[in-house]
Amino acid sequence: MATTDDSVPAAYEDLLDRYGRATYLGDANGILSWDQEVMMPEGGTPARSKQRGAVSAVAHDILVDDEVADLLDELDGADLSDERRAVVREIRREHERKVRVPTDLVEEISTATAEAHPVWADAREADEFDAFAPTLERLLDLKRRYAEHVDPDADHYATLFADYEPYLDLSTAERVLEELREGLVPLIEAIADSDTEPYAISGTFPESDQLELTHEALSTLGYDFERGRLDTAPHPFSMGTQFDARVTTRFDQSEPLDSLASTIHEFGHANYTLGLPQDAYGSPLGEHRGLTVHESQSRLFENHVGRSEAFWRLFVDRFNAQYDTDLTARQAYEAANRVYDDNCIRVEADELTYHLHIVLRFEIERELVVGDLAVEDVPTVWNDRMDAYLGVRPDGDDEGCLQDIHWSHGSFGYFPTYSLGSVLAAQLYAAAAAEIDDLDSKIEAGEFDALQAWLRENVHEHGRRYRTDELIERATGEPLTAEYFLEYAEEKFGELYDLDR
Amino acid sequence: MATTDDSVPAAYEDLLDRYGRATYLGDANGILSWDQEVMMPEGGTPARSKQRGAVSAVAHDILVDDEVADLLDELDGADLSDERRAVVREIRREHERKVRVPTDLVEEISTATAEAHPVWADAREADEFDAFAPTLERLLDLKRRYAEHVDPDADHYATLFADYEPYLDLSTAERVLEELREGLVPLIEAIADSDTEPYAISGTFPESDQLELTHEALSTLGYDFERGRLDTAPHPFSMGTQFDARVTTRFDQSEPLDSLASTIHEFGHANYTLGLPQDAYGSPLGEHRGLTVHESQSRLFENHVGRSEAFWRLFVDRFNAQYDTDLTARQAYEAANRVYDDNCIRVEADELTYHLHIVLRFEIERELVVGDLAVEDVPTVWNDRMDAYLGVRPDGDDEGCLQDIHWSHGSFGYFPTYSLGSVLAAQLYAAAAAEIDDLDSKIEAGEFDALQAWLRENVHEHGRRYRTDELIERATGEPLTAEYFLEYAEEKFGELYDLDR
Repeated sequence: MATTDDSVPAAYEDLLDRYGRATYLGDANGILSWDQEVMMPEGGTPARSKQRGAVSAVAHDILVDDEVADLLDELDGADLSDERRAVVREIRREHERKVRVPTDLVEEISTATAEAHPVWADAREADEFDAFAPTLERLLDLKRRYAEHVDPDADHYATLFADYEPYLDLSTAERVLEELREGLVPLIEAIADSDTEPYAISGTFPESDQLELTHEALSTLGYDFERGRLDTAPHPFSMGTQFDARVTTRFDQSEPLDSLASTIHEFGHANYTLGLPQDAYGSPLGEHRGLTVHESQSRLFENHVGRSEAFWRLFVDRFNAQYDTDLTARQAYEAANRVYDDNCIRVEADELTYHLHIVLRFEIERELVVGDLAVEDVPTVWNDRMDAYLGVRPDGDDEGCLQDIHWSHGSFGYFPTYSLGSVLAAQLYAAAAAEIDDLDSKIEAGEFDALQAWLRENVHEHGRRYRTDELIERATGEPLTAEYFLEYAEEKFGELYDLDR
Repeated sequence: MATTDDSVPAAYEDLLDRYGRATYLGDANGILSWDQEVMMPEGGTPARSKQRGAVSAVAHDILVDDEVADLLDELDGADLSDERRAVVREIRREHERKVRVPTDLVEEISTATAEAHPVWADAREADEFDAFAPTLERLLDLKRRYAEHVDPDADHYATLFADYEPYLDLSTAERVLEELREGLVPLIEAIADSDTEPYAISGTFPESDQLELTHEALSTLGYDFERGRLDTAPHPFSMGTQFDARVTTRFDQSEPLDSLASTIHEFGHANYTLGLPQDAYGSPLGEHRGLTVHESQSRLFENHVGRSEAFWRLFVDRFNAQYDTDLTARQAYEAANRVYDDNCIRVEADELTYHLHIVLRFEIERELVVGDLAVEDVPTVWNDRMDAYLGVRPDGDDEGCLQDIHWSHGSFGYFPTYSLGSVLAAQLYAAAAAEIDDLDSKIEAGEFDALQAWLRENVHEHGRRYRTDELIERATGEPLTAEYFLEYAEEKFGELYDLDR
């Protein structure tokens, strides 16, 4: 039970208790989902769907309750500290977004997305976009109706985007993605024209070795196995709370750097989660600030740490010991940073071309939601723009517009957060490097304390205390910009590919 | 959503929907608990407590809701099929027991048991009963108040017992335990006086081998790994639904038969769970019939199958192959059935002395609850009765009245179900053997289909359709009796120990 404090209105305590319960239920659902991906035998699916549905439904009921509305009204003019005002702001936002959408529509979306997943998987398997098109149409229609309920006056795509990133407006996303596109297209072209070929790794790298090495990488970065664990899953993810944040990975026997990069990426997510304040568990102050900030933490460790030359000076001996190889740190660094201009698959993309995959999806899903593009035209538009942005055409839709799971989840507006997160990672890393004495040498020495302290103090420990835009300005002194990412990319890849720029 | 049927009142559908949601939440909590025991890193405990507390609370709220009371009233005189009447009976029972207990008391019990566990663990570690005594007193007081709310006119111990076994009254438990005590004390004495010494296994049996062999035992018995899994846990248990019922085990390097017996025991539980009808998931017809019947299923496989000579004729080659030993089936059978008259620990007891451990606990906890025994006198009474029933005195309370976790959970009235389950196992096995042609030969041949079909038809597929007493009479033709167990024990152990009886 919350302690009573003269200065805290009873309504605030009551609101926080209710929100806490909903949060605990949401985290319980996280465990049910982790178990389903990692541990559950296949036969468990029908029961698990019902269990997850029930937990979601009761959590939803708690947040949309009329008494929550009354408590929020009561607190409207109350004299609260800034911190408590932030708590009320966050709970109000969640309550209002949920309460505006009729329960029937929530259930219809839930059913439709559950049904969509196998249809999408089969369509991708068969490389038949037509088999998925009616489902995509239905999901778009449902999500448009959803957005209409949340805010009839807003751009529906902006409303959907705000489900994933509540406090960066769509114009910011547009601006940043445009900056990325303009900066990256010529850089990628220059790389394609370069005669320099970074070192490549070849051979077979057994899964058991990869598991040991990813475990070792997590230990090297300071992952606390008393508050987490590493397992394998078909699609790597991270899940948990500030008490227990878990990481999953997967292995490709010919690509030993992929499981490392992916594990370090998930470490960044888990590390953020573990850095949220434990004493605020159950309050918005103990929750992550949204997908842009979350992704910034995974990309910062994946790219700015794990793909740095300093990291490979630290880690190459461990790599060589595991695989009985003889790489230099420079060779490993080069291999970890090769740019692939013939790749159609987002999740296999390098650090640069990745963003053009995102720009493409952002443009297409936005046009779909607002009605400027017909579902049937998606494959053609997709392939034409792949050609324009990346100079490559998918052989089939399975390698084109059917490759990602997101739309089958009804997730429109999610993709931009990947690029925004990368951009923010570069901006945060630059700010940290400006404040920490010789950060590169510290990484090479395996000393991550200063970086961790900076991230805790500037990002993790605030939970949802600040809006995303506030958090970014407080941490870096300026609004979100692609400038730092482009500067970093031009310097790093300019050197790797001997570009005269 | 439930389908509408002209013949089914809307109130029934509504009631079943609500009950279903509570059931799914309960099963979600089962997964949270399994994860905590098997997978969760230690640091996760504070968050997990809050998650489990929230899920329990919302499930409780659903069942005690006034609208559930209204629906039950509405269905009181309704024209329902026998099956639906059984569903209403079960939901009414749960609702009424829950609604009678004030929420404050429920929360107080929940807090007290959470606090009691470490106190008990420390007291056991230090062998200091006095350190646990005030906690035990508090738990007894709370559970007496609980029982008073549930039924002020009933024997409080009977009320607590009914939480675990709702449909066998306490006089049945008393009668059966008395039959057991009277039959077993002379049998155990005769065994102690016997000069015959069954074969004993000695050596070191690595955990990895034991894991493989327990896995093999589960496969041999027909465990469906598409609907379950085997893991290790500090205290073996089984958990799940008819879609996913999991088993855990643990290993002692010097006792390779212990992990086998324990795994086969948990298999029996999981096998029952997996035999519950899938189409009734979320309804009482899809739930187990209480702890007596559950325990009958685990004991039937542990003792009547896994400790039979027929099973060892089937399994001894696999055992020898795993450990590079040279046992005969007879030797393994003898080793699996040794009686230990110098053992103070319930969970290490053999099939016979086990029940005297239960009789002792039953007597003591009953006297404690009704106030005939003071908490401070428990150690003396415990040790005196151990001496009287088993001819052995514990060296300390850690091997005496502090050995079991149950009381620290506030579980008074649970212990008898262990013996009632064993007795029912023998009664069911005798009934199955009377109907199945040469069951022993089938077991020796690894053919479990006929036994499984009998159990499904007579026990599993009914869920809570019948009361426990009805189920027993329908399956075996008579009420619960210790007669079959005693007959089985006298025959089996008479032969093993060359007793002239």
